[in-house]
Amino acid sequence: MTIEVTLADIVARLGGEVSGDTAMRFNRIGPLAGATASTVSFLSNPRYRAQLADTRAGCVIVAPSEADEARGRPGGGAVIVTPDPYLYFARLTQMWAALSRPRDAAGVHPTAVVDAAAQVHPTATVGALAVVAAGAVVGEGAVIGAQSHIGRDARIGAHTRLAPRVVVGDGCSLGERCIVHSGVVIGADGFGFAPTEGRWEKIEQLGAVRIGNDVEIGANTCIDRGALDDTVLEDGVKLDNLIQIGHNVHIGRHTAMAGCVGVAGSARIGAHCTIGGAANILGHLQLVDGVHVSVATVVTRSILKPGHYSGVFPFDDNAAWEKNAATLRHLHQLRDRVRALEKKLV
Amino acid sequence: MTIEVTLADIVARLGGEVSGDTAMRFNRIGPLAGATASTVSFLSNPRYRAQLADTRAGCVIVAPSEADEARGRPGGGAVIVTPDPYLYFARLTQMWAALSRPRDAAGVHPTAVVDAAAQVHPTATVGALAVVAAGAVVGEGAVIGAQSHIGRDARIGAHTRLAPRVVVGDGCSLGERCIVHSGVVIGADGFGFAPTEGRWEKIEQLGAVRIGNDVEIGANTCIDRGALDDTVLEDGVKLDNLIQIGHNVHIGRHTAMAGCVGVAGSARIGAHCTIGGAANILGHLQLVDGVHVSVATVVTRSILKPGHYSGVFPFDDNAAWEKNAATLRHLHQLRDRVRALEKKLV
Amino acid sequence: MTIEVTLADIVARLGGEVSGDTAMRFNRIGPLAGATASTVSFLSNPRYRAQLADTRAGCVIVAPSEADEARGRPGGGAVIVTPDPYLYFARLTQMWAALSRPRDAAGVHPTAVVDAAAQVHPTATVGALAVVAAGAVVGEGAVIGAQSHIGRDARIGAHTRLAPRVVVGDGCSLGERCIVHSGVVIGADGFGFAPTEGRWEKIEQLGAVRIGNDVEIGANTCIDRGALDDTVLEDGVKLDNLIQIGHNVHIGRHTAMAGCVGVAGSARIGAHCTIGGAANILGHLQLVDGVHVSVATVVTRSILKPGHYSGVFPFDDNAAWEKNAATLRHLHQLRDRVRALEKKLV
Repeated sequence: MTIEVTLADIVARLGGEVSGDTAMRFNRIGPLAGATASTVSFLSNPRYRAQLADTRAGCVIVAPSEADEARGRPGGGAVIVTPDPYLYFARLTQMWAALSRPRDAAGVHPTAVVDAAAQVHPTATVGALAVVAAGAVVGEGAVIGAQSHIGRDARIGAHTRLAPRVVVGDGCSLGERCIVHSGVVIGADGFGFAPTEGRWEKIEQLGAVRIGNDVEIGANTCIDRGALDDTVLEDGVKLDNLIQIGHNVHIGRHTAMAGCVGVAGSARIGAHCTIGGAANILGHLQLVDGVHVSVATVVTRSILKPGHYSGVFPFDDNAAWEKNAATLRHLHQLRDRVRALEKKLV
Repeated sequence: MTIEVTLADIVARLGGEVSGDTAMRFNRIGPLAGATASTVSFLSNPRYRAQLADTRAGCVIVAPSEADEARGRPGGGAVIVTPDPYLYFARLTQMWAALSRPRDAAGVHPTAVVDAAAQVHPTATVGALAVVAAGAVVGEGAVIGAQSHIGRDARIGAHTRLAPRVVVGDGCSLGERCIVHSGVVIGADGFGFAPTEGRWEKIEQLGAVRIGNDVEIGANTCIDRGALDDTVLEDGVKLDNLIQIGHNVHIGRHTAMAGCVGVAGSARIGAHCTIGGAANILGHLQLVDGVHVSVATVVTRSILKPGHYSGVFPFDDNAAWEKNAATLRHLHQLRDRVRALEKKLV
Repeated sequence: MTIEVTLADIVARLGGEVSGDTAMRFNRIGPLAGATASTVSFLSNPRYRAQLADTRAGCVIVAPSEADEARGRPGGGAVIVTPDPYLYFARLTQMWAALSRPRDAAGVHPTAVVDAAAQVHPTATVGALAVVAAGAVVGEGAVIGAQSHIGRDARIGAHTRLAPRVVVGDGCSLGERCIVHSGVVIGADGFGFAPTEGRWEKIEQLGAVRIGNDVEIGANTCIDRGALDDTVLEDGVKLDNLIQIGHNVHIGRHTAMAGCVGVAGSARIGAHCTIGGAANILGHLQLVDGVHVSVATVVTRSILKPGHYSGVFPFDDNAAWEKNAATLRHLHQLRDRVRALEKKLV
């Protein structure tokens, strides 16, 4: 779907100090390189400042420090000056999405299966072939995607949007303005068993999942219900795709995790943390607020000091890696040999 | 849903040597810390023994070695003595779940699409908007979750329960009393291609997946069908969420795997193994019975001796890691330098 | 389902130089070991050449170099000689699948929800309880699996087959002859946020996903839509299960990735690459054509030279690993100590 927006439309909605013809029309947001007269572009990373001179973008969004250069650029065109161009860009994408995406009409699709004992707000949308079980509550303006499943007594907060084919388990709750992508499973059983005579006796998972406001959860991510108490995601948490959150994990406000992360049971992760893709956090650990974990790092003990933590094997061409890996298997002996040499030389 | 259970109810069902007022009522199972008079608690890890003195739990489950201390605790209350308190706790959660969870009525939901050539036992349940294809057999007391898909000629054993939105592929079978969580895909094609002239020719996967009794499979886990023969999970295997089981893998009885594990094609894993989260097992390997693999370990060759195996890069603050990782890239040279020093000193 | 095929059938369809009774009947394809008179077997790996002498396979497929040995084998039976036995085997599995698998009748299942503004080719199949949204186009002979979801304006090319329960997001497109397995999510939002005042402002993802011809995508794999431009998979790409492809990734022709791989946003991966299971590619990197990455390797910088790259911690028994890992945390200091020794000895 193509949309056309004038510079006046943008500034009326998002503010900023504008210079240029406000009747100019734009149909694309894009990077400085490759931009045309109908592209709105932005400069947030000073590294790309040199591209200002060459861009043909009809409008560029810049910080005050780049305002003069942007206004005097050879390619001409409009300028929007704003303290945080990247944030302005984010809001511009939101404006674009709101204009370009058709809205589902509110109401329950005739093929959805909504239990008589469920409460769906009249302004909410329930998509085709969705199931909403008894006791579930779907809030004002919420959207339940087609083929999704809302379990018994689950609660979906106001203006929360579920993509097609999401599962929210019995008794689990999401706050307001959350976004949940396709394939997400909230509230499957945590992995709990008591060993007995060489086999595993199931510990039924009696807790639920409680998710705050403004949380986003990526495709095919799983968040298990708690064993006795609940698994908790606080407000503003952002999870990417294919993440595993074990039972009774607690994730603090505005913490973000990239794809393929695993968090084992009862880990307690602070607020404002970032966890790199494919990192793993072991169970029963604590990470304080403001911890940043690099991609693929395995966190095997608590981190009680904010900071940046890493642990990844450096990759190399295969032959070099093979030699180093073979030596690594005898590293402790190598240390002993160095110690022996040191003794000889004293 | 709240439930209330008397001490008499618990002991009637689960046994144990009880002391205290059997008319006491409980509405919660919980840890010693934070317990109230209506909480049943338990002590299985001697590390927490000190908490016995402080707990306000109305009832505690303990081993004979802690019986006297539990009975004489300052907070008072009942005691159940049993040889394995953790196992007792597991069974108590099962009792709780059986009492608190509503059961679906047996029968096929009117919106389910069940082929005329499928056999669904009269005591089985098929949920809303599920599909059961021709030739499929659903056993006594089995539950097919809403929006699940049972392929052609697939077999679901007696009392096996599928959560909403599970896929069981054509010709695949599950034994009795299995539990399968949402998003699981059993029987997608294994990853098999013959390279030819710079592209990949598909090897159709003609085997199926055969799963034993009492197997549990976590959310969004995938178990591929075999290339020629079947992929096999023996009785009592427990898989957590987001696990990938390649074609023709064989997993022995009562082996358990934590979340995000990957097992490549034709690996043969013994019985009573445990595989830590995010570990990877390469293809065509053998792990004998009783092998325990640590979290995030990559198993690159067969393990023919039971034991505990690990291989994880130790994480550190980023600056320390960077220095060590840089040195690691020259570790083989460092060994040569140590060797040269040793020669000089002889 | 059992099928029976004569040697004449096979050679009529797949060619090759045959010796033996072409009326022989086969009901199984299988490895040399364990084969019976009704098994067609093949030898592609010279390592297994010794098995030719013992096999009881009714027919073996071999390269010209093994033709004489195969024809003179003690167990007797037919021989097919072909330049690439593994490729012949792949095509034989395709013949087998075509004969043994029932085809869905073309047409839209009465329980599917197809928007009046969608275009479904008369020869295409739309399964039970599938959803096809407005503006979507489903091509000639394409198969939309039961309970799948085709978003607005999405395009499914001719003869592409979606298994049950696939999601293709709004505006995303697949080429011809693709195969997409259950649980796949194409076109969920990429993970993009602008940080502001301690929280995350969503960057709406305005791009789509464009997938070429002959692409195969494994179960529960996720391919995110681009932020501004599209995420692209070129022709012939093969992805295994549980893979995460971030926004604006570009994957070149005939590149294959094993299970559990993660590729972060804007990575550009060349043609004819292979990426081992659970490997991770960081964002904004480039891998040229012909790069092969080992299992579980984390690629943290661009690779501009074709070749084989690795970076995995070698696993060991836990006690040995613990010692080596502890020493590794002081590796940089060890290097300094070696340097100090070297200075003393000069």
